[in-house]
Amino acid sequence: MPVTTRQWLLNGHPRGRGIEDSDFKLAETKLAEPGEGEVLLKTLYLGFDPAQKGWMENIADYVAPMAIGDVMRGSGICEIVASNHPKFAVGDLVFGSTGWTEYLVSDGKDLTKVETDLSPTSVLSILGTTGVTAWCGLFKVGRPVSGDTVLVSGAAGATGSIVGQLAKIAGCRVVGIAGGEDKCRWLVEEAGYDAAIDYKAGSVRAQIKQHCPRGVDVIFDNVGGSILNDMLGEIATGARVVICGGISRYETGSLPAGPQNYFNLVFRRGTMAGFIVLDWASEFPAIRRRLEGFVKDGRLTWQEDIQHGFENAPDTLQRLFSGKNRGKQLLKL
Amino acid sequence: MPVTTRQWLLNGHPRGRGIEDSDFKLAETKLAEPGEGEVLLKTLYLGFDPAQKGWMENIADYVAPMAIGDVMRGSGICEIVASNHPKFAVGDLVFGSTGWTEYLVSDGKDLTKVETDLSPTSVLSILGTTGVTAWCGLFKVGRPVSGDTVLVSGAAGATGSIVGQLAKIAGCRVVGIAGGEDKCRWLVEEAGYDAAIDYKAGSVRAQIKQHCPRGVDVIFDNVGGSILNDMLGEIATGARVVICGGISRYETGSLPAGPQNYFNLVFRRGTMAGFIVLDWASEFPAIRRRLEGFVKDGRLTWQEDIQHGFENAPDTLQRLFSGKNRGKQLLKL
Repeated sequence: MPVTTRQWLLNGHPRGRGIEDSDFKLAETKLAEPGEGEVLLKTLYLGFDPAQKGWMENIADYVAPMAIGDVMRGSGICEIVASNHPKFAVGDLVFGSTGWTEYLVSDGKDLTKVETDLSPTSVLSILGTTGVTAWCGLFKVGRPVSGDTVLVSGAAGATGSIVGQLAKIAGCRVVGIAGGEDKCRWLVEEAGYDAAIDYKAGSVRAQIKQHCPRGVDVIFDNVGGSILNDMLGEIATGARVVICGGISRYETGSLPAGPQNYFNLVFRRGTMAGFIVLDWASEFPAIRRRLEGFVKDGRLTWQEDIQHGFENAPDTLQRLFSGKNRGKQLLKL
Repeated sequence: MPVTTRQWLLNGHPRGRGIEDSDFKLAETKLAEPGEGEVLLKTLYLGFDPAQKGWMENIADYVAPMAIGDVMRGSGICEIVASNHPKFAVGDLVFGSTGWTEYLVSDGKDLTKVETDLSPTSVLSILGTTGVTAWCGLFKVGRPVSGDTVLVSGAAGATGSIVGQLAKIAGCRVVGIAGGEDKCRWLVEEAGYDAAIDYKAGSVRAQIKQHCPRGVDVIFDNVGGSILNDMLGEIATGARVVICGGISRYETGSLPAGPQNYFNLVFRRGTMAGFIVLDWASEFPAIRRRLEGFVKDGRLTWQEDIQHGFENAPDTLQRLFSGKNRGKQLLKL
């Protein structure tokens, strides 16, 4: 029984500008029946990430290019609804880069079974790319030592809020930068940050000085722009600056402004590094077990922002760029 | 017999502007006779470095502050003209941070004897801070591997020209950026660079693309500003970006513009790092022996630009910021 599915297709490359409604096109297509070794999947949840705009722009070269007419790339949790594959049974839950489609046929190669005691959605958030990005960026690139001061921008975001908690577990003093009183309160009261800086409430540089009087040993930057520059102004000797994201670039559509204070890397013998989390893919299962353990110990919490309805996928992505989401942005179909 | 000496004193902090004549004051002072354990030194040569402007500004905190009225800090080669110190005899040549003075009295703690078969001035250039800065920045921070493409800005400068030659010895493809045909010809014909890019002759980015078709593995930056940005635009996966200097900042007096292409550190998993060469001071003697060996093998050459007359010290420093010097800037008294 062939299945008809709705899909969101890429309809424009948002280069040098924000995402617009016309960058997506809703289409309906008939799927072939799953052949030998294939499964039919029904999407239950989609996960959203700022990197998706980069994929749409098709300028980053660490992932395959996206062409007009392609099904929009994205992560999803799916249920197996028909299977000709020995590894998957009807009813199994799996996750992977399944795209913005209600149904799809897959050979199963890039699918991972949902095997956790936590909620199924955790595989897209705390146990998903978000969680392992926080882990790898902090521990493999930032390499904090107990007692270090760790400063996180975009601290109330999906990645940032996990980074801060992992740094606390590692014995660090943790300060987060976020926009607005609500987010800052959540950072301190729920996520265990030692202090929060509201970038909408006065000089960021002065607030960093106040909360990091001995300088910043590890910066975890999700933002770029003037906030990265202010953070670089306050690095301690030997600081490690982790560049994870540059959400500020999405406001203008171009790259974030260059941080003039980069020269402090000389005065303070600092290091600034970017990373692509897929480079550590072979370690993801072990990292996920650690993260799951911290959650069960009660040392790690996370937030999910769940929107509803497949037709709202484009709007849900936009929430990331308007700062509306609190924690991991998900969509329930 | 007390000695009267001329000295150049700091008379202004050139912050947010270029150096002006009025930032120095020529003074005459009578030195006390050298006491027990002290020596009287006569300066033969002074060495110049862009970092001296930073010291004058008194904003960098990796060296002791310089106050108005202090003898201008700088490196020198001196002859011992009187000695009450068991380690030094009259006629010995020494070098150290002796300052802009014709004579001085010293306890000898920071003096090193000139012991080389090369010219005495080599201790301020190829065997001095310049040489060890090139060595440490390239090998300890840039870590080139044979076959890597190494791109050097300020390539005809004192440090840059040594970096390029060391990278050639290490089996790399080496491309240099310099201003003007003469400097570029010297890079290729004398210093052994594989290619030279004249930043005054068309798009730097396009020239980098042409000469580094597989991207740049190691950047050694002495310049900052738009040239650093262009170099970052062409980094290869896993690139190491060494920030050694930012001569472009001296044009405006402020920090160099931030490199917008820093975000390529994410797409290409790159690392950008600064360093202070004094951190490896304990290794300087061993590094100097290596450099001297390369010179004797005929694998390493260097240039010295020797001006004359103590009264010309301020003008000689200025040559660094107008791009007039070719190789290490020295002054013979």
